[in-house]
Amino acid sequence: MVYTDIFSPLVPADVELATELIKKHPKNVKDVVQFVQIDKLNPPRKQATKLVDMLRAGETEGLPVIDPKAYVLFYKNNELPLYKSIVNLKTKTVEITTEEEGLGPMQADFVEKLDKEVLELPQVKENIARLNLENKKFKHPTLGELGYNVISETWMYGNRGEPEDHLKPKAQIYFFIKLDHPESNHYALPLPFTVIVDYFTCEFIDMLYLAMDGDDSTPITPDRLNDWVIPEDIHKFEYYPDVRIDLEPELNLKPLTINQPEGVSFNVTNNNKVEWQGWEFYVQTNVREGFSLNNIYFKGRPLIWKYCLNDMIVPYSAKPMSTKPGEKHKNALASKMAFDVSEIGFGNTTFPLGSGCCLGYIKYFDGCKADIEGKPVVVKNQVCMHEVDNGVQCLHKNYRTENNKLVLRRRELILQTVATVANYEYIIQFILDQNGSITTEVRATGILSTTAIEPNTKTDHSTIVAPGVNAQYHQHLFSFRLDPRFDGDLNSVCYDDFVPLEDKEEDWLVGFKAKRTWLEKSGHIEQSPFTNRTYKFINENVINPVSMTPVGYKVEIPAHQLIMAGPNSQNIKRAKFATKQFWAYHAADDRNYVAGELTNQSKEDTGLAKWLEEDEKSGKSIRNAELSCNITLGLSHAPSTEQFPVMSMDKVEFAIIPVCFFWKNPALDLPIATAETNKIVCYEDIVAGKQSSCCSK
Amino acid sequence: MVYTDIFSPLVPADVELATELIKKHPKNVKDVVQFVQIDKLNPPRKQATKLVDMLRAGETEGLPVIDPKAYVLFYKNNELPLYKSIVNLKTKTVEITTEEEGLGPMQADFVEKLDKEVLELPQVKENIARLNLENKKFKHPTLGELGYNVISETWMYGNRGEPEDHLKPKAQIYFFIKLDHPESNHYALPLPFTVIVDYFTCEFIDMLYLAMDGDDSTPITPDRLNDWVIPEDIHKFEYYPDVRIDLEPELNLKPLTINQPEGVSFNVTNNNKVEWQGWEFYVQTNVREGFSLNNIYFKGRPLIWKYCLNDMIVPYSAKPMSTKPGEKHKNALASKMAFDVSEIGFGNTTFPLGSGCCLGYIKYFDGCKADIEGKPVVVKNQVCMHEVDNGVQCLHKNYRTENNKLVLRRRELILQTVATVANYEYIIQFILDQNGSITTEVRATGILSTTAIEPNTKTDHSTIVAPGVNAQYHQHLFSFRLDPRFDGDLNSVCYDDFVPLEDKEEDWLVGFKAKRTWLEKSGHIEQSPFTNRTYKFINENVINPVSMTPVGYKVEIPAHQLIMAGPNSQNIKRAKFATKQFWAYHAADDRNYVAGELTNQSKEDTGLAKWLEEDEKSGKSIRNAELSCNITLGLSHAPSTEQFPVMSMDKVEFAIIPVCFFWKNPALDLPIATAETNKIVCYEDIVAGKQSSCCSK
Ligand SMILES: [Cu+2]
Ligand SMILES: [Cu+2]
Repeated sequence: MVYTDIFSPLVPADVELATELIKKHPKNVKDVVQFVQIDKLNPPRKQATKLVDMLRAGETEGLPVIDPKAYVLFYKNNELPLYKSIVNLKTKTVEITTEEEGLGPMQADFVEKLDKEVLELPQVKENIARLNLENKKFKHPTLGELGYNVISETWMYGNRGEPEDHLKPKAQIYFFIKLDHPESNHYALPLPFTVIVDYFTCEFIDMLYLAMDGDDSTPITPDRLNDWVIPEDIHKFEYYPDVRIDLEPELNLKPLTINQPEGVSFNVTNNNKVEWQGWEFYVQTNVREGFSLNNIYFKGRPLIWKYCLNDMIVPYSAKPMSTKPGEKHKNALASKMAFDVSEIGFGNTTFPLGSGCCLGYIKYFDGCKADIEGKPVVVKNQVCMHEVDNGVQCLHKNYRTENNKLVLRRRELILQTVATVANYEYIIQFILDQNGSITTEVRATGILSTTAIEPNTKTDHSTIVAPGVNAQYHQHLFSFRLDPRFDGDLNSVCYDDFVPLEDKEEDWLVGFKAKRTWLEKSGHIEQSPFTNRTYKFINENVINPVSMTPVGYKVEIPAHQLIMAGPNSQNIKRAKFATKQFWAYHAADDRNYVAGELTNQSKEDTGLAKWLEEDEKSGKSIRNAELSCNITLGLSHAPSTEQFPVMSMDKVEFAIIPVCFFWKNPALDLPIATAETNKIVCYEDIVAGKQSSCCSK
Repeated sequence: MVYTDIFSPLVPADVELATELIKKHPKNVKDVVQFVQIDKLNPPRKQATKLVDMLRAGETEGLPVIDPKAYVLFYKNNELPLYKSIVNLKTKTVEITTEEEGLGPMQADFVEKLDKEVLELPQVKENIARLNLENKKFKHPTLGELGYNVISETWMYGNRGEPEDHLKPKAQIYFFIKLDHPESNHYALPLPFTVIVDYFTCEFIDMLYLAMDGDDSTPITPDRLNDWVIPEDIHKFEYYPDVRIDLEPELNLKPLTINQPEGVSFNVTNNNKVEWQGWEFYVQTNVREGFSLNNIYFKGRPLIWKYCLNDMIVPYSAKPMSTKPGEKHKNALASKMAFDVSEIGFGNTTFPLGSGCCLGYIKYFDGCKADIEGKPVVVKNQVCMHEVDNGVQCLHKNYRTENNKLVLRRRELILQTVATVANYEYIIQFILDQNGSITTEVRATGILSTTAIEPNTKTDHSTIVAPGVNAQYHQHLFSFRLDPRFDGDLNSVCYDDFVPLEDKEEDWLVGFKAKRTWLEKSGHIEQSPFTNRTYKFINENVINPVSMTPVGYKVEIPAHQLIMAGPNSQNIKRAKFATKQFWAYHAADDRNYVAGELTNQSKEDTGLAKWLEEDEKSGKSIRNAELSCNITLGLSHAPSTEQFPVMSMDKVEFAIIPVCFFWKNPALDLPIATAETNKIVCYEDIVAGKQSSCCSK
């Protein structure tokens, strides 16, 4: 076991140790322990920042001692409750064990088991039999005659507001037909029923039939499944080249690659400390959030303590149907809201990067998770890091002189992970530049979540993306966590609006000014794009000598629609973060999970909602305080036919940018770009077969 | 002279012909003609689209004949009025000549002359003498002892709402001190006075002193200029490497270049027709707008007739001072609002691209303009075009299978021009992808427009970016023109909002739907980011067989603050486009310039404002009509110290994206990306000195 610093991710030996300690613990030794999640515990912030500061100052005496710890979530004997133990990896002891309320995150081994076992349930077999798939075949032009089978997909059950919803461990399973080829696109053949089972035993709880009528008003009856019609056209919606029947010749796309003949500009030590262009930070892979950046410095000044995707939800639009008077939510889709970070874990859903996700010169970071038996599983290439060129950063030409021109290019360092959450893919990128800015970009791609609909039927809250295939409107709401530490541990939050310079409108001609408002208590800031509202982190203790104002960073968040759900909906109760775009509150070591630690079947938000109540009670000002912050990005998604069978990525992003933090442009020391450094080759020379050129001079 | 198609830009022979025809015209032959702008006239849309359609259909008989024409703006004998002639380049005749109201765009030769002559005005010389620059020297660490001199910068006069403002031809000239080196940054040494002169004769009209008190309340008196203090620190704000005194060693930035060993994927014929990945369009460089894309098709279907930056304004915040009761606008900065497209012309402000603006394999397009004598001037490399890789476009991994993964990368084709408008640089990019989307990106860089301020003084509507250097808050508002032709000439415009599925809030749980509203008459659509409002072009005559809805494209415009100015301000009267983000109106061949053809000193908007009045009168529906559209991007700019001496780019963008226009993802036929195609090299191998690697597999 090696602990060279407090930001190292767990390595296999840590997981083995944690597993052993849990299994051999007297309270567990007689039980079958089922491991749900083992991951590194965040170090306590106050001690850790002190340690970091002392180490940076070259001090060696009296350093705070921070033992490396892991948290372990587990069940015993295939039933609730969920247990959580804190394991000290240095003292090799189990420090605390608590019984948790609620269900743990979905474990891949459980999902695999449920995916299989559900197909053996008599109620499911009966429905599959109705379909009469044995007698259906497709003559595939390249693969020959292929049969069909039924495939299941296990989702979390969600929460429908019924009292026992968060206690009874359930899974909800959807069904699809697919061609008998492993890469066939089953999302093009959804079936209109879903099954609810016991999460541990796969015991049958309920079979729900879905509506196919476009109005969500009437669930089908089982006989609608009889001799299910598979339109031949549907096979035009395969996506994988081997299975596609209409693969068009490629449009003469010529290879384009990156060349870094002298290597990369970054440096990695201890396999997690990164230095690049004045930046210093630690990359920590983890199971829950995928990865985080820690202890971020730029040009020798601290900026952020921890930076990561903190949680996310994907609520779907659906009509609550009322099959009996007073009974709502019977529509199985009305509770469809996935917490893809906290219910599953981005580290659990990463497929090794490296096959096509980036170009050129890459540093990969591995992750480590545990299987159901507590054995370590290395996630190879969970995170990748590489440099890209993103056009011009600074440019100026004095029109009075001839040849000189200042052209500085924007080199970026991108840290990236990709999560595959069943149908969807999320690509999370943290992008650093030489200006001291960090851009966070989310790309949503993958396949739309689909349901069956009667042919030639439309709805007002979905798009028909293939014959009989319905893609509900839905949203993706991402919450990013940012622990500000701009030039010191004590920061404040404010926002600036552009307002007229004159009080009276009749006097107002062209003047406008910035009006600053401080956030005094834990809470949110409303979006206000029409006043150019800009969120800012300010260190009121440090004055920029040039601007004569306190130093700060702004957060540029495009105004997005936030969660579309009624105030009494379960969705809002479970995910307060999704109701506003910017949140700030007092930092605390137990405030880590924005919607609560355990969100699977949660009845309410035990994260942000609880912290804000606590802070409201304490009444403590958040001016000049140790803060945490969450930022919500919203993507309201009305699917289109262009997004099927696999969607071209939809992008949302925000950026943090220095504003009077440095006394002048920190990116100005870059080398001037020229035709030579850029290796420019002109079209006319390319056509003439040359690979170098001077026509641009 | 060669006219292979209607979208060719003017070539030198065309300009020579136009000049000759104007000069020899009986009405001009006795005069000294001063050419202001010569450029290609847009072809009439109805005939031109008919011609294009017939040619695409392979027809050769009865084709509409469209003579190539140029417009020529000129003065005679160094005075108003401005004349406009339409020259038929085929028949070699001057078709029409009109006397225009107002001043033409700023001509580079006029500016150069004014920049020089103003320094000879006694009033200016007197102020320069006060500064006592002869006795001031700077000991530059590498260049030795340098003296100082005064430099002038000619701006348009703007318009202050005084009755004669749009008739009397004026220029406003700002003054700066600079070190005696051609690339010294004079914007770090602004002077607090400005001079207004006759645009033609440089005759002195007025000298205005600016306030330096942070409250804009009291203009300085001339004696404040006496023995002007130049802080030594100011030389830390040089930007050009030769002049910098604090150039830091580069941070080990390693070269990164692009390799396209098999050449580029695009094809250019006739030096203006481009084909790439299913796209077809014509690039036309021009003097006013820089360039436009014309007759854009994707996958054989028409999308857009003309696409360009149409105009832009940069209004600055300033207090109108009142030196006499009732007299406003005496603050020389209160009328500071530049129309950088229409008052100057992006083709006039392009410096040849090719030195650093792009990487790799580039096609350049030249422009052609006229000098004051009507001689053609070729603008080498006015526009560049190249391919870039922009990460992942589509990605999906079936979690049930092992090795297969669909990874398609986003290749983009970027068309770019750069305008240097005195201090500022604007980089305009049109970015096409394989999904049928066009992203328009504007990067603002260059140097902030600065004024002098007393040391240790702040204001509420500006930022101090260097000692004694004030950068006013201001805005950049860009208007892009888009003539929709989605799947045919008749299009409609609508917007979709996400609204609750239930009428009553107490019933509303999680359902939401899209509510469509059609724009029935010429006008605008309000921004509404919180309802996820999406602007759409719809062809109501073509139904997508899959979604069963009419085909369309959406316009994704982030919600921005628009023009900050009172309703009675001159700024609003002159640029209606800047008040809303999305405008649609009936197309017409004389509706080309969104703020009017001549905006220099304009008193009112003779573009959009007039067209909307006309359409209001006609009452004609814009459903299923031949439309034009303007899109406004806003950038409200509170400068920061990081943006001086040269700012890292600030970016605004919008995109048009197909929405149920294609029946499935049009980008799906791309080759799958792999570690091999991406030429991946691992960090560990790079460090070990290898240039290829297999660790990612
Ligand atoms: Cu989505
Ligand atoms: Cu600006």
